[in-house]
Amino acid sequence: MTQFEGSHILSVNQLDLDAINTIFNVAHKMTPYALREKRTKVLDGAILGNLFFEPSTRTRVSFGCAFNLLGGAVRETVGMGASSLSKGESLYDTARVLSTYSDVIAMRHPDAYSVEEFSKGSRVPVINGGDGSNEHPTQALLDLFTIQKELAHAGRDISGMHIALVGDLKYGRTVHSLSRLLCMYKDIQFTLISPSELAMPDYVIADIEKAGHKITITEQLEGNLNQADILYLTRIQEERFPSQEEANKYRGKFRLNHAIYTQHCKSNTVIMHPLPRDSREAANELDNDLNSHPSLAIFRQADNGLLIRMALFALTLGVENQLEKYECPVNWYSRKADR
Amino acid sequence: MTQFEGSHILSVNQLDLDAINTIFNVAHKMTPYALREKRTKVLDGAILGNLFFEPSTRTRVSFGCAFNLLGGAVRETVGMGASSLSKGESLYDTARVLSTYSDVIAMRHPDAYSVEEFSKGSRVPVINGGDGSNEHPTQALLDLFTIQKELAHAGRDISGMHIALVGDLKYGRTVHSLSRLLCMYKDIQFTLISPSELAMPDYVIADIEKAGHKITITEQLEGNLNQADILYLTRIQEERFPSQEEANKYRGKFRLNHAIYTQHCKSNTVIMHPLPRDSREAANELDNDLNSHPSLAIFRQADNGLLIRMALFALTLGVENQLEKYECPVNWYSRKADR
Amino acid sequence: MTQFEGSHILSVNQLDLDAINTIFNVAHKMTPYALREKRTKVLDGAILGNLFFEPSTRTRVSFGCAFNLLGGAVRETVGMGASSLSKGESLYDTARVLSTYSDVIAMRHPDAYSVEEFSKGSRVPVINGGDGSNEHPTQALLDLFTIQKELAHAGRDISGMHIALVGDLKYGRTVHSLSRLLCMYKDIQFTLISPSELAMPDYVIADIEKAGHKITITEQLEGNLNQADILYLTRIQEERFPSQEEANKYRGKFRLNHAIYTQHCKSNTVIMHPLPRDSREAANELDNDLNSHPSLAIFRQADNGLLIRMALFALTLGVENQLEKYECPVNWYSRKADR
Repeated sequence: MTQFEGSHILSVNQLDLDAINTIFNVAHKMTPYALREKRTKVLDGAILGNLFFEPSTRTRVSFGCAFNLLGGAVRETVGMGASSLSKGESLYDTARVLSTYSDVIAMRHPDAYSVEEFSKGSRVPVINGGDGSNEHPTQALLDLFTIQKELAHAGRDISGMHIALVGDLKYGRTVHSLSRLLCMYKDIQFTLISPSELAMPDYVIADIEKAGHKITITEQLEGNLNQADILYLTRIQEERFPSQEEANKYRGKFRLNHAIYTQHCKSNTVIMHPLPRDSREAANELDNDLNSHPSLAIFRQADNGLLIRMALFALTLGVENQLEKYECPVNWYSRKADR
Repeated sequence: MTQFEGSHILSVNQLDLDAINTIFNVAHKMTPYALREKRTKVLDGAILGNLFFEPSTRTRVSFGCAFNLLGGAVRETVGMGASSLSKGESLYDTARVLSTYSDVIAMRHPDAYSVEEFSKGSRVPVINGGDGSNEHPTQALLDLFTIQKELAHAGRDISGMHIALVGDLKYGRTVHSLSRLLCMYKDIQFTLISPSELAMPDYVIADIEKAGHKITITEQLEGNLNQADILYLTRIQEERFPSQEEANKYRGKFRLNHAIYTQHCKSNTVIMHPLPRDSREAANELDNDLNSHPSLAIFRQADNGLLIRMALFALTLGVENQLEKYECPVNWYSRKADR
Repeated sequence: MTQFEGSHILSVNQLDLDAINTIFNVAHKMTPYALREKRTKVLDGAILGNLFFEPSTRTRVSFGCAFNLLGGAVRETVGMGASSLSKGESLYDTARVLSTYSDVIAMRHPDAYSVEEFSKGSRVPVINGGDGSNEHPTQALLDLFTIQKELAHAGRDISGMHIALVGDLKYGRTVHSLSRLLCMYKDIQFTLISPSELAMPDYVIADIEKAGHKITITEQLEGNLNQADILYLTRIQEERFPSQEEANKYRGKFRLNHAIYTQHCKSNTVIMHPLPRDSREAANELDNDLNSHPSLAIFRQADNGLLIRMALFALTLGVENQLEKYECPVNWYSRKADR
């Protein structure tokens, strides 16, 4: 990928290391604006079409606020019921029409490859906010960005690290996309921990091996975490299972809490999770007794998501170097920072 | 209609030729703002109440973006479930309360005449965004505006033209309203093509005849298009039919594609459709093989809808002559224009 | 309560008379902005997270517009379906994540005390927009503010007044909260009129008596209104009843119309209702024939709600003394004022 301005962001596959570093550099520049230490109106007058044909709170609001924080306005569509798609309209037509109204589009849709299909009719850049079981590139980017930042605190690099991926590795698209991104780095040790029925798909494993990384595959949490720099937990993706009962079989199989962490992990192993975590007794994959642990990075992941989305808006609209030109003062009460 | 400022826009019947020309003149002035060649903040600080008690994506987003493009903010309500109307509140009360919050209201509602009823309680101008089977005046205006612009390209006028209306002429409120508007012009030739069960209502035909226009009525598409300057296709309005089965009887009865167009139409017959078009195999009233044809005006209709809605907001709020006074630069990547 | 800036507004119990007077003073200062006589951009760049996990039109739009009127942007979530809460996420996690995105949060939720629970994870001030059967503090404040303003027109005070509360006093949380607030004033005469099955809960009565106020309890409307300065009517809260049938038993039991008002009330008794009023024949607790009566304050209550919410945003974000500094002109058509 050589140019962001005017381009769609559909898949992590379109990104090389240079592109990723560009995104991360812009994301770093977004930090003071996201923290309300500074304010910019660089996109004042621009409109985001925030199209969530599959409902979502967290990702939708994150995209919307990222655009507001750059000074832009947001027009939102939630769910399929109200949409012309249900009257037999093609994604191409929907895109031709709705892209008339906005300057950039963020889109989530339940069908794989639908966002790409939509982008063909769009007159403005389209950012994939999740297309079913296929991709969720902004999540993959925020995960990678978090890993880089967290390791940097310890003076470490992505290359050479050890990462343990735990839980539903079959349906969790976030671990697939993250794994692909990690294939651009060197000498990573993967530990894949899941029930065999929810194992990482073969094509992802093939990619990891082709990149020259080392893989350990196991069904056992305890005893396999003591070398991990990053511990990435996942939720059972029950909405992708054939039935609730099928999902229940695996719920609660792997649980991390303060005692297990202390016994089995290094003292500074970073704990990640794409959220939401299931806090109900039957699942509880990541216990609340770790909430104040300094290595718990799950809420910093959400913070980083905002930075990544701000960066992608700035890049696709070509304003990444004009943030300071449109700065204004922050007049109001400043929110508490995390950490 | 002598004054727009502070007035409701409820029906095409309240508009005379002068009013229509005023709206179209302002709509033309909106073009550079809609294309992001220029930017105006003339309504910065104003609030649109975008009340879609009947869900809709396209029209709702078009109203919302039209207001954003003038610098205003938008507060939106979608669907009936969440509304106080379901707790037995009158439209009058709803209007008294919700009009407290905004400077102008766009409203869609499933019941005929409900928007007019609502307007009686409103303290601010109300624009009808579609009241069930009754009216959808902004659609009629954008259709007429499109006809005028497309014919002007060929050095032609609305008066003296030939228009063919095709499909569900019974339930399609857009063709009713458009026909009424065309009664203000002279010497128009109408060709009405529909199954007899979905024929144009008698009262519309009476209006057309009273205006001195000529009408041909037929059930046959082929052989009846060769004189048409404008070919206006419609979707079977299945949501207005007693049952899905009843609607299916007529679906796919009239189809236009590249071959039929080439064989039966003049070389520059303008193709229009209120959208969404049903692209499913069983219907497919307007084939995708015409997508890049220069006479296909369907997406320009959507573009024009934005201009018409911007014009109505500017007129009802009395700022149509202040657009330039509040201009600011456009900083970001500029979208691709259509055509 | 000694400081608003950065604080949550969860319950009327956290407010003393000083705090209430502060809120009311700021609300008065909001009047010209709400009427569009003036405009302020004091919160330009700030984001409200408007989280209505229980749907609502009126309150949601009121919060949103209040924030827009101060210059801020609004990101909205409506309903539970789309939310991570349905995937087993705790309110704490939801708050930690969503509060990343905004500067202040207004929240409604069907469960009692859920907003308080949420506030513990939030990094920004949270304002309770109604937590099930528990509290709806902004409604209580707007009611009290209305009483104060309406009595002031007659040169009267809250202390020393006579108020009649009518209807569903059991499930109507607005009358509970209002009663608690009135306990901070002196020498109030309460007349509680309801079916015995829907009587005011004992703990509220205990509070009123403890404050030294006088109470009359009756099941009869007629004959018990002739001393009332304020007549506060309520709707049967059918959504809190075990069944529709149960609710229907009480619907229409107390009705006020022009004839009853004229016969049974003082000439300037102020008529209040939290809205929506049920205008269906079977209920019709407050007849439309009073719509133009100068003592009907129900729509002024809605207007005051906007002022109260603007005041709370300004106070929790610490900008209540900077409104004038960020004033700009109003360019557009000015809405009709009520009264």
